[in-house]
Amino acid sequence: MGYFRENVEKAAGYTPGFQPKEPDVIKLNTNENPYPPSPNVMKALAEIKPEQLRRYPDPLADTFRKAAAEVHGVKPENIMACNGGDELLSMAIRAFCDENRPLAYPVPTYSLYPVLAKLQNCRAIEIPFDKEFNLPAGLANTGAALTIVCNPNAPSGTFISVGELACLADEIKGVLLIDEAYVDFADENCIGLINKFDNCIILRSMSKGYSLAGIRFGYAIANTELISGLMKLKDSYNVDAVAIAAATAAIKDQNYFKEMNKKIKKMREILAEKLRELKFIVLKSHSNFLLAESKTVPASIIYEKLVSCHIYVRFWNVPGLENKLRISVGTAEQNSRLIEALTEILNR
Amino acid sequence: MGYFRENVEKAAGYTPGFQPKEPDVIKLNTNENPYPPSPNVMKALAEIKPEQLRRYPDPLADTFRKAAAEVHGVKPENIMACNGGDELLSMAIRAFCDENRPLAYPVPTYSLYPVLAKLQNCRAIEIPFDKEFNLPAGLANTGAALTIVCNPNAPSGTFISVGELACLADEIKGVLLIDEAYVDFADENCIGLINKFDNCIILRSMSKGYSLAGIRFGYAIANTELISGLMKLKDSYNVDAVAIAAATAAIKDQNYFKEMNKKIKKMREILAEKLRELKFIVLKSHSNFLLAESKTVPASIIYEKLVSCHIYVRFWNVPGLENKLRISVGTAEQNSRLIEALTEILNR
Repeated sequence: MGYFRENVEKAAGYTPGFQPKEPDVIKLNTNENPYPPSPNVMKALAEIKPEQLRRYPDPLADTFRKAAAEVHGVKPENIMACNGGDELLSMAIRAFCDENRPLAYPVPTYSLYPVLAKLQNCRAIEIPFDKEFNLPAGLANTGAALTIVCNPNAPSGTFISVGELACLADEIKGVLLIDEAYVDFADENCIGLINKFDNCIILRSMSKGYSLAGIRFGYAIANTELISGLMKLKDSYNVDAVAIAAATAAIKDQNYFKEMNKKIKKMREILAEKLRELKFIVLKSHSNFLLAESKTVPASIIYEKLVSCHIYVRFWNVPGLENKLRISVGTAEQNSRLIEALTEILNR
Repeated sequence: MGYFRENVEKAAGYTPGFQPKEPDVIKLNTNENPYPPSPNVMKALAEIKPEQLRRYPDPLADTFRKAAAEVHGVKPENIMACNGGDELLSMAIRAFCDENRPLAYPVPTYSLYPVLAKLQNCRAIEIPFDKEFNLPAGLANTGAALTIVCNPNAPSGTFISVGELACLADEIKGVLLIDEAYVDFADENCIGLINKFDNCIILRSMSKGYSLAGIRFGYAIANTELISGLMKLKDSYNVDAVAIAAATAAIKDQNYFKEMNKKIKKMREILAEKLRELKFIVLKSHSNFLLAESKTVPASIIYEKLVSCHIYVRFWNVPGLENKLRISVGTAEQNSRLIEALTEILNR
């Protein structure tokens, strides 16, 4: 046809994790929270009036910004609501990168970054992690206009200390976006950096920690200059009225949030231990998933056999992730059924 | 700071119409439907389960695509769901335009187009409408990679015939995106063109005709090649689970949709007549708003006096729209109160 820009024509697009439609599968492939969202979210949904659907939503989602600001100890002006964290990634790459302004990130990491770089026609500088997923020294000297560090990293679940990221923010010339989509399951976070450095953007998601993947809600935390600039790239009404209500109810219920996340972290440790007993090498995870490699059976075989048991995990088979499976932490029952299935597969 | 790309640094961003927060205002400034959405939408919301919030939504919104395809007599593969029509505009400009691939559109029109062009750093070729808002002949020869025609046009409410747009699709070299956000209030539409020309994209919105501005839901209708290409620019999960359920329920209730739109069209004609009696020049509208110019009092004065009566209409004061007010068609009662206020303002 030739209508599309050449870089778009050549781009493959992002492949989201498989979303099985049968209700009775064990779905540990896209890092959803195994627990339902706070009951307050369902209450907020029940209170939605036709008038809120009829009218345009608040363009800035101020009720959410206020609630999130209180939780994080920042000002509402430090927050921008997004249609999922993915929208912020797309906006940031469009704001800072182009043919002459490259993007940089350590690999392997969230596979959306190179897809967005391709669409923006900017160079993607990929600096490999070592086997322990330490911050690569080379990341400080790429000259990139935007550097993204996913922390905890997906799909490794590993965590780079706040101190190391502070040094990186200080050393690089461009903007540092710290993708904290999974940070709710870690012990530390980088929000404090937004006041110390003028180039830091924190990405947060309501999908994982708050069990709201279905409503698409993420947000940026940054200094007001960066937020104002990013706002220019925002669709006028990028988050919808129902999503604003749901996300606000969820973030206000910190008790529920903390209780659920504590349970998930506990189950993560139990699951990691059981996988190690089954001769998996399992990286220490600070997230709601584990990256595991069997010492005895190839990942591709384990993956296929799990699918035939209606258990879905994630398997990429790309450089840096050969023979590795990413397993989302499920409910106690789901984790047990996974371990049972793996025991059978590995001992057969 | 210097972190942003130069074109972004210089961009002003889009200013959405004012969203007053007081509940008792008469809000005729952002073309919302005056009636609530179909009661089936509220039923669909009441049936949302926590599980739908917890899990990622269907990346392609297939239930909606199927329902919309049936209504429009196309295939589900001809449809792509978007987070509001604005998201489709942004995606199309990123798909087809860049520094060497300009965008073209007649002016005055939807003020978001130049904002998006600036952000994509592409040239925006603006071809002025004549006073009757006829399709400018020059639009056929711009050499633009993407031509957008808003039809019915905002803020004029005028309509360009399907035949004329077919000729334009045939004559131009690039893609023709027909922004039919307001077409639900017109008598014809351009969906038929997607099978006759390989370069046509139709934009549709659930915000106006279906009274769902609050949930942010629009869609593209085009041939499968264009849809597949545009899909690459889509965030993986760009529309949320609740919005998919609401939009699907709304589009399936064609009886309600037709009944409400018939009422709005009838009230539009009554309101136009009353405005003409008050010595306004009112363009024939095919939309749910009227563009009106008083022969006796400047628009800026009328606008300010209406605000002091808690009545909001839209006033830009830009070339081609000097002295004009865009008035959304409200309920019978809202329209009466507007006419009362205008009578007082104009006779004072």
